[in-house]
Amino acid sequence: MDDILLMLPGPTSVAPRVLKAISDNIVNHRSAIFGEIFTETTELMSEIFKTNNQSYLLTGSGTSAMEAAIANTLNQKDKILNIVGGKFGQRFMHIAKAMGGNPQELAIEWGDAVTPEQVKEALDKDEDIKAVTIVHNETSTGVAAPIEEIGKVVKNYDALYIVDTVSSLGGDRVDVDKFGIDICVTGSQKCLAAPPGMAAMTLTDDAWKVIDNVDSKTYYLDMKKYRKAGSGTPPETPYTPSVSMIYGLAESLKIIKEEGLENRVARHEQAAEATRNAVKALNLELFPREEVSSTTVTAVKMPKGITDSDFRGTMRNKYKVELAGGQDHLKGNIFRIGHMGNITYKQLAITFSAMEMTLKGLGLDIEMGASLAAVNQAYL
Amino acid sequence: MDDILLMLPGPTSVAPRVLKAISDNIVNHRSAIFGEIFTETTELMSEIFKTNNQSYLLTGSGTSAMEAAIANTLNQKDKILNIVGGKFGQRFMHIAKAMGGNPQELAIEWGDAVTPEQVKEALDKDEDIKAVTIVHNETSTGVAAPIEEIGKVVKNYDALYIVDTVSSLGGDRVDVDKFGIDICVTGSQKCLAAPPGMAAMTLTDDAWKVIDNVDSKTYYLDMKKYRKAGSGTPPETPYTPSVSMIYGLAESLKIIKEEGLENRVARHEQAAEATRNAVKALNLELFPREEVSSTTVTAVKMPKGITDSDFRGTMRNKYKVELAGGQDHLKGNIFRIGHMGNITYKQLAITFSAMEMTLKGLGLDIEMGASLAAVNQAYL
Repeated sequence: MDDILLMLPGPTSVAPRVLKAISDNIVNHRSAIFGEIFTETTELMSEIFKTNNQSYLLTGSGTSAMEAAIANTLNQKDKILNIVGGKFGQRFMHIAKAMGGNPQELAIEWGDAVTPEQVKEALDKDEDIKAVTIVHNETSTGVAAPIEEIGKVVKNYDALYIVDTVSSLGGDRVDVDKFGIDICVTGSQKCLAAPPGMAAMTLTDDAWKVIDNVDSKTYYLDMKKYRKAGSGTPPETPYTPSVSMIYGLAESLKIIKEEGLENRVARHEQAAEATRNAVKALNLELFPREEVSSTTVTAVKMPKGITDSDFRGTMRNKYKVELAGGQDHLKGNIFRIGHMGNITYKQLAITFSAMEMTLKGLGLDIEMGASLAAVNQAYL
Repeated sequence: MDDILLMLPGPTSVAPRVLKAISDNIVNHRSAIFGEIFTETTELMSEIFKTNNQSYLLTGSGTSAMEAAIANTLNQKDKILNIVGGKFGQRFMHIAKAMGGNPQELAIEWGDAVTPEQVKEALDKDEDIKAVTIVHNETSTGVAAPIEEIGKVVKNYDALYIVDTVSSLGGDRVDVDKFGIDICVTGSQKCLAAPPGMAAMTLTDDAWKVIDNVDSKTYYLDMKKYRKAGSGTPPETPYTPSVSMIYGLAESLKIIKEEGLENRVARHEQAAEATRNAVKALNLELFPREEVSSTTVTAVKMPKGITDSDFRGTMRNKYKVELAGGQDHLKGNIFRIGHMGNITYKQLAITFSAMEMTLKGLGLDIEMGASLAAVNQAYL
C-alpha cells in the first residue's frame, strides 16, 4: 500500500491498534464469546450516540443504514420530508422513492444550511408527513445542520425524526436522546476512525412503534429481525456479520471512550478552525458560509485558473496527501479537506505544507508559511 | 480470542496471510490504487465462478446478495419458483415475498434434494414463472442439489436461473457459464475461507436485460448502480465498500488460484468422504441420503439419549472444537460438521478425536479409534 495521508471526509486513517484488532482470529458469530464482543460494541455505540436505547450494527456502508431507516418505517405512498442541501440529503430522498414512498423535498442551496423555521413551515403546510430526514453533516458541501434546534421543531409533530450522522458522530456534537432523534444512523469509517464496512443505528420506542406497523421493504435490513436476534442468548445478528469489522469498531469505540467524547469533539472543532483559518490565510475562499461550516470537513472553492486534476493530482502524486473533490455539479468547483477521526495539528501541518507548495508550483502567488502559521496559531 | 477449532459451515478458519492482508492500511476506495485491487478481486471472483461475465462485490452477508438477486429482477406480483428444502431455500422465498413478488414454493423434504424432473414439472405447470431460485448447497441440511442438471431444464424456459452457491463455491463444483446460471451469489466466509462480511455475484446478459426493465426494490443493493460504478475509471462501488474485507477476499482468492480450483474441490470431496466414513464408523447416522450429501458440510442425526447441549457443549468447552447444531425444526435433532475452506485431515483428526472422547464421556459405547481409522483410510 502506498503511504498517502488521507485527508478525506472518510475513510480516515485507522489507528494501528484497530488494524491489529481486525486481524484477530475469526470466531463463530453465534457463540457466547462473540455475543460478549457484540454486546460490548453495541453498548459503546449507544454511549457514543448518547442514548439509552439499544444500538444495532449493520454490515454495510452508511447508506445501508439510511435505507434501513426508511425501508422499515415507510408505508407505500407515505409522505416523508427530505431536507436536501447536498448529495447525502438527496440520497435519503432517492431511497424514499425507491421504497415506494412519497418524498417531499425541502430544497436548500448546496452550501447553505436549513433553518428550524423552514422545517416548521414545511411541516405546518402538510400534516401527512410521517417522517423528516436530515443529514447532520453534509459531507458533499461541508455544511453542518442545526439538528438540535430542528429536533425541537419536529417533536411537536407526529413525524419521526431521522438523522444521518455518518460523518459527524464522534467528531461533532450529537446527543440522540436530548435532540429527540428517533432514528440515528452512522458509519464506521468517518469520525469513529474504524475501517469502512460497518454501519450503526439506534431507534426510539416511537420508531419501533411505527416499524411494528410497517412491512419492511427490505429483508437484509429488516430491523425487526435485528431486534429479535439482538435480544437472544447470545445476542447476535440475523445474518452473518463482518466479525473482523466489529472487532475494529469495538477497538475504535474504546479509543473514543479513552479520549472522552467531549475532548474528541473539541479536538475536531480545533482542527476545523485551524483549517478554515489556514484556507483564509492563503486567500482561498471557503465554500459554505462560515457560520454553517462543518466541524469535520472543510469545503473550499477551487482557486481560479487551477484545475481539479492539477491541484488534487499534484497534492496526491507529488506530495502524497489525498483530498476529496467536489461531487455532482460541484465537481471541479470545490475541493474538500476531511479533518476527522485521529486528526491533530500534525496532519494539518503536512496538508498545508503540501498545499502551499502545490499552489505555488501551479503559479499562484502564495505567501509561503502563511497557512502553516494559521494552523499553529489555532493550536497554540 | 479463544483457541477453538471452527468446524462450522461458515465462518471457517482464515489463513494467517489473509488476516495479515486485512490489517493493511486503509486506502481511499475511490482511488486508482484501490481500483487496481478491486479489479483484481472481481476478476479472480469471475475465475472462481467460472464465468466470462463481470463479478460484483457487495459489502454484506450472503443474504444481501440473495436479496440483490431478487430485488433487481422481480416486478411486483411476478411469479418466482423457489425450491425449498431447507432454511436457505426458504430464505429466497421470504425475500421474494418481502419484495412484493409472488413466490411459488417447490417444497422438498428437508434432507432430500430436488430432482430435475420436479423442476421441469413445476415449470411446465405455470408458464408465468419469471425466475427459479435454488440453493446449491443447503447448509441447514447438508444436501447438495444437482444444479448442473437443473440448469439444463431451466434453460428451456423463459425464466432466470438464480443459484445460491454461498456454501459451495470454492469447495464443490460450480461452473456458472456451463451450468447456465443467470445469477450466481456467494459469500466470503465459507469455502472461499475469507472473513465474513462480503458477498459476490455474477450476472449474465439475460439477467441484465431483466434488470434493465425492473425498478430495483432496493437502493443499497441496486445492481444498476454497481454496474455503473464498476465500469468507471477507476472502477469502484456505488457506496463505500469494506476495504479491508476486499483485501482479505483478494488474498483468499489468490490462495485458491495457487491451489488450483480442481485440486481444491477434490480436497473438499476427500474431506467429505472421510467425514461420512468416520461418522458411520461410530455407528452414527447421516441425516441426508448419502447420494445427495454435501461436499462441504455433513449433517448427522444426534445419537439417541444425547442432548445437543451436552454433545456440542462438551465438544466446544472441553475439547475446543465447535460444531454447528440443527436449525429450526432440526434443532437438537442433528448436528453439522463443516469441512470447508482450509480443511485437511488434520482438522478431521482433531474433530473425531474430540468426538470419540465426548461420546464415550457421555456414556455411548464407542469403539475408540474407529472414526480416526476411517479418516486415515480416506486420506491414505
